[in-house]
Amino acid sequence: MVQVRLHIYIDQDGKKFITPDRMALLQKVRSTGSMVAAAKECNISYQNAWTMIHEMNELSPEPIVEKHRGGKNGGGAILSAYGVRLLTEYDSINQMVNNFNQRLNVEINL
Amino acid sequence: MVQVRLHIYIDQDGKKFITPDRMALLQKVRSTGSMVAAAKECNISYQNAWTMIHEMNELSPEPIVEKHRGGKNGGGAILSAYGVRLLTEYDSINQMVNNFNQRLNVEINL
Repeated sequence: MVQVRLHIYIDQDGKKFITPDRMALLQKVRSTGSMVAAAKECNISYQNAWTMIHEMNELSPEPIVEKHRGGKNGGGAILSAYGVRLLTEYDSINQMVNNFNQRLNVEINL
Repeated sequence: MVQVRLHIYIDQDGKKFITPDRMALLQKVRSTGSMVAAAKECNISYQNAWTMIHEMNELSPEPIVEKHRGGKNGGGAILSAYGVRLLTEYDSINQMVNNFNQRLNVEINL
């Protein structure tokens, strides 16, 4: 069976801002509240995870992820208010793309 | 300015069949009729180009690209009838995705 999948990329001023890998990392930061845990769940190094976050933060009008000190696990990483808004908007885009993709898969003729 | 882009992937029985890079190569085979020229325009090696073609041909119900012997350039590569149909269908999918993507970019709120 042939099936089309659509991958979502978001550019900021023509530069690569959100990729599927970067979004997966942000979603894990949201669910775990920890960069160590988020990196582990994405199978990337902690250093690589922070590099990805820095690259996004640099292009973003506001920081997306902030370091959070203290707490019983020695601190973690939390989404900023803008980060929360970005992920909420992405969820909405993802839903629209999925709906379209389902209709598209009915129409393809391969 | 924030802009969404959608990348098209096509799976065959759950396996990666067409990726943006593979489709770019097929489009260059179509336009040049030569694997040497197509590989060069895609900035990949001739060997890598044939590996990509073999991977697609193995998953495809029919071969997509066929070696073409003879001719003043010492032979080349041509799309099979199925390959022509695949690219025509892809062009149609690409058009539908682009139309949807334009509407999506009007709606995003970032």
